[in-house]
Amino acid sequence: MNKQNILVTNDDGINAKGLRALIEVASEYGNVTVVAPELGMSGMSHSITMNNPLYLRRIKESDGMNIYACHGTPVDCVKIAVDAIMKQQPTLILSGINHGANSNISVIYSGTMGAASEGCTYGIPSIGFSHIAHRNNIDFTAVRHYAHKIIKTVLEKNDNPFLCLNVNVPDLPLEEIKGVRVAHATKGYWRENFEKNMDPRGREYYWLTGQFFNIEPENQDSDEWLLKNGFVSVVPIQVDMTDYTQKKAMEKWQIESL
Amino acid sequence: MNKQNILVTNDDGINAKGLRALIEVASEYGNVTVVAPELGMSGMSHSITMNNPLYLRRIKESDGMNIYACHGTPVDCVKIAVDAIMKQQPTLILSGINHGANSNISVIYSGTMGAASEGCTYGIPSIGFSHIAHRNNIDFTAVRHYAHKIIKTVLEKNDNPFLCLNVNVPDLPLEEIKGVRVAHATKGYWRENFEKNMDPRGREYYWLTGQFFNIEPENQDSDEWLLKNGFVSVVPIQVDMTDYTQKKAMEKWQIESL
Repeated sequence: MNKQNILVTNDDGINAKGLRALIEVASEYGNVTVVAPELGMSGMSHSITMNNPLYLRRIKESDGMNIYACHGTPVDCVKIAVDAIMKQQPTLILSGINHGANSNISVIYSGTMGAASEGCTYGIPSIGFSHIAHRNNIDFTAVRHYAHKIIKTVLEKNDNPFLCLNVNVPDLPLEEIKGVRVAHATKGYWRENFEKNMDPRGREYYWLTGQFFNIEPENQDSDEWLLKNGFVSVVPIQVDMTDYTQKKAMEKWQIESL
Repeated sequence: MNKQNILVTNDDGINAKGLRALIEVASEYGNVTVVAPELGMSGMSHSITMNNPLYLRRIKESDGMNIYACHGTPVDCVKIAVDAIMKQQPTLILSGINHGANSNISVIYSGTMGAASEGCTYGIPSIGFSHIAHRNNIDFTAVRHYAHKIIKTVLEKNDNPFLCLNVNVPDLPLEEIKGVRVAHATKGYWRENFEKNMDPRGREYYWLTGQFFNIEPENQDSDEWLLKNGFVSVVPIQVDMTDYTQKKAMEKWQIESL
C-alpha cells in the first residue's frame, strides 16, 4: 500500500478525544496534517466563514505530523488545509471521530460530514467517522478497529476520487458489534421542542432540542436500523443536491412558457 | 387559489432589501410570518445553533403579518417558526431574495437554500430565490416578477409536499430576461485563494476568497449556462444525500466480510 498524505479534521474541535483517536489511526498510513476547528463546531453543516478572517494556530510542524487549529468551521479547515497549508494535495481526508451520531438525515446538519463532503468536492476520497454516543468518556476502541478496516478497503478497492463515506459506529463494546453494512441515510425528519427560558436580564430565550422521527423504522437497508441492530453503517454521500426525479416530474409544469 | 400561510426567511438578515421584496411578494398570497436572522448569515449552509440559546425579537404582530428576528441561523429560523411560533403550520416557505448567486454546487454552502431545504424536511413546499448580483443597489423588479410566476405555478401544479426549488435570476433588466428553465445544479468545484494578512497585533490571518470552476460550461441543462444566457434557472433540490450509484458500486467491495 502506498504511503498516504492524510488530512484529518473534525467538528468537535482541536481538543476532542475523538480527534486524537483518529490521528492515531491516520498516522499508520502515512504523513498526517491536522487542521481542526479551534472551537466546537457541532451542527455547523457545510458552512463557510465569509464575514470574518480566519486565524491559524501552528501547534506542531514536523516530519510526517503537522497540526494546526483554525478559527473557522470544519469546511474552512478543509479549504485552508488544501488551498493554503499543505504542500501536496492530500490523498485521503478523515473527519471525526465525532462524539455523537451522524446517521439519518442528520448528515445535512453535521459539521463532521460537512468537512468530509467538502473533501470530496476536491476529488479527494473522504471519510467521516462518528461514535453514536454523546457522553464524555467514550471508548473509541471499536471505532478505531473498524476505521482501520474501512480505510484499508477504500485504499485497496476505491477508484472514485469523489468518494465520500459516512461511517457510524454503535455504542457497543467491539466484541458485540456484528459487522459492517453499506446503507442509505434513513428517511425521516427532526422536530424541535424549543425549551423557553428567561435570562437574568428578563429576556426570553429558546434552546433547540430535537427529536428524530424515523419514517422507515423496519428498513434493514437504513443506517438507523443497522445501528440499532449492532452493525457499523457506511453510507456513501454525494454533493449534487439536484432532485432529478422531481426535475423529470416538472416537465409537465410547462415552466418554459412562464 | 386558497389563502396561504406563508413563512418568509432569508440569510442576509432581517434588514436586507431582498427580504423586504420577498415579503411584498408573499403578502399577495395570504398571511405572512417572517422569521429572519438578526445578523447576516451568508454561507451558513444547513447549520443549526446547538451551543447557544436563541433569542427572538418581536418586531410586528398583527393580523396577517407577523415579523420576528432570531439570533440564529436560517435553519434555526425555520425550526423556531414552525415548531414554536406559528399557530398553524405554514403551507409555503419562501427564502431570500438572496443578494448573490446560489447556483451550481453553491447550494451546499448557502444559508438561503439551507432554510429552504429545511422547510421541505417538514413536508412544506419551499422555494429559495436569489438575484445573482452582489452589489448593494440591486433592483429586485425581475425577481419579483418571476417569483410571482413560479409561486403561482407551484400552488397550481405541485403535489409534492417535499418540493424544494432553488431559483436564481440573472442580473438583467426584466425585459432582457429570456424566460424560465428547469435545470440541474452545475457540476464543478470551488477553489480558494486565501488572502494572507497581518492584524495590528502581529497575528496572521486569512480571508477566504473563492472561485468556481465549471466542469460542464457548455451544458445547456445546467443552471450556470442558463443564467449566463439570460434565463431564470429553477433547480429542484432534495435532502437525501445518499449516493445510490456509489452504494451499488460498493457491493463489489464485500464490506459485509469486514
